[in-house]
Amino acid sequence: MLDKNKEVEFYETLIISNKEEVKFNNNVDFCVGTGRFGLGLCKEYIDELKFCQEEIGFKHIRGHGLFSDDTAIFHEYEEDGVKKVEYNYTYLDRIVDQYLELGIRPFIELGFMPYALASGSQTIFYWKGNTTPPKDYKLWCDMVVALLDHFVGRYGRDEVITWPIEVWNEPNLPGFWEHADMQEYFKLFKYSFEAIKAYDKDFRVGGPAICGVKDAEWIEEFMKFCRAEGLKIDFVTRHHYTIEFPENIGHYDYSKLMDIEAGFANLQSTRDIIDSFEEYKGLEIHITEFSSSYTPKGVIHDTNLNAALMARQLSRLGDMNESYSYWTFGDVFEEQGVPFSLFHGGFGLVAAGCIPKPTFWTFAFYKKLKEQNGKCVYKDNSSVVVATKDGYAGILWNESSDTKNINKLVFEAKDSEYSLMYKVVDPDTTNPLKVWHDLGEPATPNKAQTKLIKESAWPLVKTDRLLPTDSRIETTFEVKPEAVIYFEIKESKMTSDRGYNYKKVIMTR
Amino acid sequence: MLDKNKEVEFYETLIISNKEEVKFNNNVDFCVGTGRFGLGLCKEYIDELKFCQEEIGFKHIRGHGLFSDDTAIFHEYEEDGVKKVEYNYTYLDRIVDQYLELGIRPFIELGFMPYALASGSQTIFYWKGNTTPPKDYKLWCDMVVALLDHFVGRYGRDEVITWPIEVWNEPNLPGFWEHADMQEYFKLFKYSFEAIKAYDKDFRVGGPAICGVKDAEWIEEFMKFCRAEGLKIDFVTRHHYTIEFPENIGHYDYSKLMDIEAGFANLQSTRDIIDSFEEYKGLEIHITEFSSSYTPKGVIHDTNLNAALMARQLSRLGDMNESYSYWTFGDVFEEQGVPFSLFHGGFGLVAAGCIPKPTFWTFAFYKKLKEQNGKCVYKDNSSVVVATKDGYAGILWNESSDTKNINKLVFEAKDSEYSLMYKVVDPDTTNPLKVWHDLGEPATPNKAQTKLIKESAWPLVKTDRLLPTDSRIETTFEVKPEAVIYFEIKESKMTSDRGYNYKKVIMTR
Amino acid sequence: MLDKNKEVEFYETLIISNKEEVKFNNNVDFCVGTGRFGLGLCKEYIDELKFCQEEIGFKHIRGHGLFSDDTAIFHEYEEDGVKKVEYNYTYLDRIVDQYLELGIRPFIELGFMPYALASGSQTIFYWKGNTTPPKDYKLWCDMVVALLDHFVGRYGRDEVITWPIEVWNEPNLPGFWEHADMQEYFKLFKYSFEAIKAYDKDFRVGGPAICGVKDAEWIEEFMKFCRAEGLKIDFVTRHHYTIEFPENIGHYDYSKLMDIEAGFANLQSTRDIIDSFEEYKGLEIHITEFSSSYTPKGVIHDTNLNAALMARQLSRLGDMNESYSYWTFGDVFEEQGVPFSLFHGGFGLVAAGCIPKPTFWTFAFYKKLKEQNGKCVYKDNSSVVVATKDGYAGILWNESSDTKNINKLVFEAKDSEYSLMYKVVDPDTTNPLKVWHDLGEPATPNKAQTKLIKESAWPLVKTDRLLPTDSRIETTFEVKPEAVIYFEIKESKMTSDRGYNYKKVIMTR
Amino acid sequence: MLDKNKEVEFYETLIISNKEEVKFNNNVDFCVGTGRFGLGLCKEYIDELKFCQEEIGFKHIRGHGLFSDDTAIFHEYEEDGVKKVEYNYTYLDRIVDQYLELGIRPFIELGFMPYALASGSQTIFYWKGNTTPPKDYKLWCDMVVALLDHFVGRYGRDEVITWPIEVWNEPNLPGFWEHADMQEYFKLFKYSFEAIKAYDKDFRVGGPAICGVKDAEWIEEFMKFCRAEGLKIDFVTRHHYTIEFPENIGHYDYSKLMDIEAGFANLQSTRDIIDSFEEYKGLEIHITEFSSSYTPKGVIHDTNLNAALMARQLSRLGDMNESYSYWTFGDVFEEQGVPFSLFHGGFGLVAAGCIPKPTFWTFAFYKKLKEQNGKCVYKDNSSVVVATKDGYAGILWNESSDTKNINKLVFEAKDSEYSLMYKVVDPDTTNPLKVWHDLGEPATPNKAQTKLIKESAWPLVKTDRLLPTDSRIETTFEVKPEAVIYFEIKESKMTSDRGYNYKKVIMTR
Repeated sequence: MLDKNKEVEFYETLIISNKEEVKFNNNVDFCVGTGRFGLGLCKEYIDELKFCQEEIGFKHIRGHGLFSDDTAIFHEYEEDGVKKVEYNYTYLDRIVDQYLELGIRPFIELGFMPYALASGSQTIFYWKGNTTPPKDYKLWCDMVVALLDHFVGRYGRDEVITWPIEVWNEPNLPGFWEHADMQEYFKLFKYSFEAIKAYDKDFRVGGPAICGVKDAEWIEEFMKFCRAEGLKIDFVTRHHYTIEFPENIGHYDYSKLMDIEAGFANLQSTRDIIDSFEEYKGLEIHITEFSSSYTPKGVIHDTNLNAALMARQLSRLGDMNESYSYWTFGDVFEEQGVPFSLFHGGFGLVAAGCIPKPTFWTFAFYKKLKEQNGKCVYKDNSSVVVATKDGYAGILWNESSDTKNINKLVFEAKDSEYSLMYKVVDPDTTNPLKVWHDLGEPATPNKAQTKLIKESAWPLVKTDRLLPTDSRIETTFEVKPEAVIYFEIKESKMTSDRGYNYKKVIMTR
Repeated sequence: MLDKNKEVEFYETLIISNKEEVKFNNNVDFCVGTGRFGLGLCKEYIDELKFCQEEIGFKHIRGHGLFSDDTAIFHEYEEDGVKKVEYNYTYLDRIVDQYLELGIRPFIELGFMPYALASGSQTIFYWKGNTTPPKDYKLWCDMVVALLDHFVGRYGRDEVITWPIEVWNEPNLPGFWEHADMQEYFKLFKYSFEAIKAYDKDFRVGGPAICGVKDAEWIEEFMKFCRAEGLKIDFVTRHHYTIEFPENIGHYDYSKLMDIEAGFANLQSTRDIIDSFEEYKGLEIHITEFSSSYTPKGVIHDTNLNAALMARQLSRLGDMNESYSYWTFGDVFEEQGVPFSLFHGGFGLVAAGCIPKPTFWTFAFYKKLKEQNGKCVYKDNSSVVVATKDGYAGILWNESSDTKNINKLVFEAKDSEYSLMYKVVDPDTTNPLKVWHDLGEPATPNKAQTKLIKESAWPLVKTDRLLPTDSRIETTFEVKPEAVIYFEIKESKMTSDRGYNYKKVIMTR
Repeated sequence: MLDKNKEVEFYETLIISNKEEVKFNNNVDFCVGTGRFGLGLCKEYIDELKFCQEEIGFKHIRGHGLFSDDTAIFHEYEEDGVKKVEYNYTYLDRIVDQYLELGIRPFIELGFMPYALASGSQTIFYWKGNTTPPKDYKLWCDMVVALLDHFVGRYGRDEVITWPIEVWNEPNLPGFWEHADMQEYFKLFKYSFEAIKAYDKDFRVGGPAICGVKDAEWIEEFMKFCRAEGLKIDFVTRHHYTIEFPENIGHYDYSKLMDIEAGFANLQSTRDIIDSFEEYKGLEIHITEFSSSYTPKGVIHDTNLNAALMARQLSRLGDMNESYSYWTFGDVFEEQGVPFSLFHGGFGLVAAGCIPKPTFWTFAFYKKLKEQNGKCVYKDNSSVVVATKDGYAGILWNESSDTKNINKLVFEAKDSEYSLMYKVVDPDTTNPLKVWHDLGEPATPNKAQTKLIKESAWPLVKTDRLLPTDSRIETTFEVKPEAVIYFEIKESKMTSDRGYNYKKVIMTR
Repeated sequence: MLDKNKEVEFYETLIISNKEEVKFNNNVDFCVGTGRFGLGLCKEYIDELKFCQEEIGFKHIRGHGLFSDDTAIFHEYEEDGVKKVEYNYTYLDRIVDQYLELGIRPFIELGFMPYALASGSQTIFYWKGNTTPPKDYKLWCDMVVALLDHFVGRYGRDEVITWPIEVWNEPNLPGFWEHADMQEYFKLFKYSFEAIKAYDKDFRVGGPAICGVKDAEWIEEFMKFCRAEGLKIDFVTRHHYTIEFPENIGHYDYSKLMDIEAGFANLQSTRDIIDSFEEYKGLEIHITEFSSSYTPKGVIHDTNLNAALMARQLSRLGDMNESYSYWTFGDVFEEQGVPFSLFHGGFGLVAAGCIPKPTFWTFAFYKKLKEQNGKCVYKDNSSVVVATKDGYAGILWNESSDTKNINKLVFEAKDSEYSLMYKVVDPDTTNPLKVWHDLGEPATPNKAQTKLIKESAWPLVKTDRLLPTDSRIETTFEVKPEAVIYFEIKESKMTSDRGYNYKKVIMTR
């Protein structure tokens, strides 16, 4: 355990030129995770998603259980002695309509198994998702194609064709797929893939959606299988979490961090395996889930540390992957039951009552950075900087819990004036978890408490004017332990109105 | 001019007992000012008022020009050779409906003169309010009574009877009342007073709404007049500004502060004059306008200094007055023309785009303090503290621009646990003016800039846990120059959920 | 089957005097039903409830399953080898906070059984509410009292004490209470009652919440039991549905109407039984559920006929009961699974997308009538009229499907002018079911279709001017088959503006 | 004056083939009028505009007074003895920001004259727009170019370049342009045109914005002038009103209708004059104002008759013009002072409180028709029909006040099923003016009255199923006097859910 009171300082100077270009595929907003699809009926879920969309804005959303029984899609009945199938899209439509209204669209995950279509009784989670193969692959394929056809009828082919389709979730774990039966999964994949392509070959389909258990073996075998069967898959998917096996105490999981670079190396190995197949070289990889802890009571999720850790992830994940989807946008999530308390280590960027956690801002900052449309000119393990048409923008972070970084940044500049704006998220400025703790850790804060915690959850905004010397501007950021800072430097003319003199304004008494 | 960089520190320890009671009439929310009544038609005005009502919540609102021509109430026409009068309440109703919907109601100021009813052509302001006596006092009284009757018909007597009525505005200035003619004003007052009381004696009527020019003389003569005429007036009104005559540069006014205590002494003298009349001893005084600068381009209004100055005002104004109405809630105001720029020294608590100025929080803090329903146990020139049923709440401020106050507060406490929450508004935490300046002082910031400035305009929220030692808890506040701090200390049990250990949460990596 | 084309007309004249008073306990807004408590998490549910509250405004809401597993309140765990209990109020608080924000509060129904507390495995409904007695009555009572204590802590005793408490639901049916075991229910009742009263004797507690099966026997025995045990219960509850056993076809239930008067007679018998007990004479009876059909796929619910039928119910139910709660406010309801289609015979006043059904207006009209604060001066089987301070208001309905009623109403009137306003809900004016049918019965209408159906679902508003002759005013309403009409007649002076002549306006070309 | 009680019926059968195409340039949503630009600051104005945009959606908005003193754009001041100019865009930006947020953008009208830039003192309207030439044409051109440059800076050139620019308003009337001085106007036009084109030649500029007084002469001379000066103007503008000179009574104007065909002939003559110039043949004509009455107290505006009259206008105006802009969208308008009463003959499609007038629906219907993307297959003086990809849509109207049209429409159809939907606006279904009258003509209705009037202001929605016989479907519309009906006929499969039988649903009791 660290002694946070023994703070040390670390000085560094970065010289930033806007000439070089560094590899940086910032696809922060491509997709975000959500718990069970059916939770999309909940008001709190929609409130939180709306909040995310307004402040960040993701393009796709991916969650489990689209076919689980709470969405009530698949039904069998008997008529005149014959078994027939009927589909109920009442809840499906309600949820997807709402998604589209919020400017987000499904990254479709095909799963889990409707009880009436299941071959077995194994379930996963508090909400009992059935994780056994279909009792009849034809009925499964019919259901999948009927779903797409329904989507096309309701939203138009042009729209729906852009929704990627992933077959099942983490079949390499026996809880998610009975016996983690690889051959059975390949069967499911092939049937699904071929049925979809037969319906409309322009749908993009991928798998195997594995997590980090025997992942190399699964990827290797999956690619071989696809090659052998001649499946021109559109992308590969996998997951990425960065903790060791956690310690459980009461309702909560406490975890140690993995070696971060080992995590990236593992991702690179997936890239390498795929590239070793001539037919699939350069094929898109989508990380369809990532976070630090992989449990919905992983206490780290609510901390400032997590915000700093995710800042590094977001700077690097695009290096070998097309996209990466944070698991999850919000805390409405029931895999291990209903949370007992506001802050409970939930996966969400946002806690109940639309309280942004520190990590929320890491994502907001990367989105903002993307919107600058710049080229990356600097990247290291605690910073990324892009040059824009009229200046710079960047993110600085500090994963340490006891060392304060004093970063002096020196930028090439024109002979002009500049405006500096930066937003600070650190344990002193933006720490809703601490505020909640200091209020006594109320399980379900009342309205006034929620308002207060929320007020404490925004970044501190700071600004300055910068003038170049010798075609350079410089500024120094104090990046405290566990801090994330976003900055923009822009050319900016002073346009004071006639008679307005700011210095005089603030100095006169 | 001060050198803000040479900061000094000042240490003080306050020992707070919850036994004593100190005089403190906190009526911060009784009334707030607004510019011209007709501006109530504007969307931006209503947006700003709504924002004030949500965060603060005032009971009454007072502004000029209810009878001015832009509200279009009074009309004469000829029919069959006879001159007749008709009233148009279209705009009046629209504005007052909106007020009531926002939970605020008029503090009625009778004025200015409709052009068609005026005896002369003198006007005041960009918007040309006619400030001459009526050409016919009967028509004036008819109009006043018709107004009240219309209000009663629309909103019910129970409601309308609670709206105080003030006759005219600042008749001691020749711009506001032709020649500052005292006898003519008394005539206007008497006619108005008697007409209203004849209509319904329960309406509460007062005057003379003077500002600080020959104020003692006016108050004295006004009281004598009322006594001589047997007018049982319901309250006396006056204004209170605390700057010296300003220096004008371009569109802006720069001013020196008056001696603050001289200002309070002047208010006390009004109290004393009234109390010297046996018949009017203890009569309510309402400060129907107060601020630092009295000009709508008084640059001080937008500063952190102003927030600190108003903190002292709010702690003291209730000592000798029933209420005191800050002039004004928002920056939609046109007396000297349309502002050229976002921050222009407008009177408002709120700037365009619903950006709260530092002073806004001074008012929000006093309102919050009032809601604690405590008794005042400590008050000096930089702090006020109340004891509540389960702890304390208070406000600290620092009017200095170069000295940082380090205030250690020591409170009597039970053998329990306490939660401390405080909100800081100072030039480092909450300084929208600086952010706007650093952005280059854009005259009308665009949407993104406005959002950013707004984000910079909220207090920093901080919390802590406090444990008593020897039946005392103590905490130390760093009250920076020009800062205002609101705090609450409350008994608070820690209710950690099973297995949740905050220290372990933030320390594990 | 009726031939709706063979319409006949029926003429009647009602002479209304404002002198007489007729018994009419209009308590239309006391309570409304809802499905499962946990559905209160759903956005669509809250949207529909909000709509109901804005247009009607109920005081209480009652639904099943507060303790069912989806609200996740009750939990057992082992610590140090000891079994302990913990409660989770996360979802409970979220739902009740939302209720209160919408101005509605629980009519608490204690039930069903958390799985972990159940003595058996019997469940009811698609959502599997456990309907067996507790395995341990002490644990049950602890849970009930903890709930109330939590409510009091969160919302204050003054508020919570006004929430009536009903023990279980329809224990006279074996599906709702294992074996419909009367003695076991009495045990549950007694334990619950005594635990609550021990906690706070001012809580109001009642039962037995039975429906119309062996109801007389249950009521009689329940009263005897309470008398024998000395339980001073606060009220008796029962249900009231008015159809014969329905025919099922596919997903839908088609039903014949019961004899309506037989229904009222049955209610009266409950009243009589209670009054036959000296100790309980006059005790409040609350109808905690009523409607026409008792199935959530009872196609009649969506029709205009239902609106007319409920109009008679609402005019009479107050005669022998304190209150009566329509089952249910909205169509978010899952007892028999997820509906396949917009109109599916759901219980709701409102269909998905906040489309008001005809019956919605029956309730809105009775609420409006209540707000007139008049005294009832006329009531028969197709009309109710109240005299107000300045006129009359009333509701007319026509339960027939083939006879048009031509009702001439003659009112005592002053020598004044009157304004007539009436709203018509009949198959020609307000028939969303037909519009949806004519659109092809889309299962989940898209946004444009929903907007259209909604536009078709409002009453037709009509007005007129009425002038008295011989101190009487008269007006004739055409009450079409299955119509419900609300009218108001008010004294109204014509206040035409100078020069405005309505006849001239509409006649000039 | 007509006797509306003597109603006669008129039978007609229309045979509609989807093969033919009839000329019909439906540009209903290109532009709408507004009063003074500065009124865009008003909340009620924005509420009404928002309502229009949600239900109709216009692309452009055109009003007077952009440069008038209430927007406070132009200022002169002296510095160091030199006169200088400064611009204030505070209000301009506030209004245009709001426009764009509502999806509408300016059709810029250059005018009127800022007082400080005016050569004379002549003003027009209650709000005193100065209508004299500039005292200095250079200052005028500077101001115009500065405006465009400011717009480009704030909104981007791509956006602003699409805003048409019209020079002044109705210079052929002496009230709008001193002495209606044609040569002076031409001078203004030339200076403005050349300054704008010099700034950016892609801006589109036109004139002379005349109304129907000496219009032929003005158009002829204007074209000659442009030709002589070599001005490649982008479009010609004129106005179009269709009443005779009105009779004034009190606050109101009563008018007789002009011969409608004479009006169209007059428009055609403008077309012909322009086409007679080789250089300008086919040049776009924009009707930048049209309505029935040209006074803001023209009582006809609020009537059902007006809705029917405008239906014919909208079917024809596109024949010879590129666009036509209804004057005005809402009733916030002050040219003749503040209205005394809700319905006062204001120009608006919408009355105060966002009450749609009957004419509002004429526009909504034409917009809906446009969205069908069909080709016109039938048009006469009381109907227009388009064939769509899956059916038909059309508008029927009846300008008569005493004859009911019984229109049987017979359409070519496929061997399929069709759904008919129609919306009726006639004096019986949609008549807010009558409801307000029957309520006693309250000058400013209270909230409940406004809600009621609004409820009465929507079209009656009706639907049916149509089955073809011999490849034809037919349906009969009863088009009552002053009615406007919109209909859609679409192929529509019946998709009844399993077990749902609509006939059985509504027939069972």
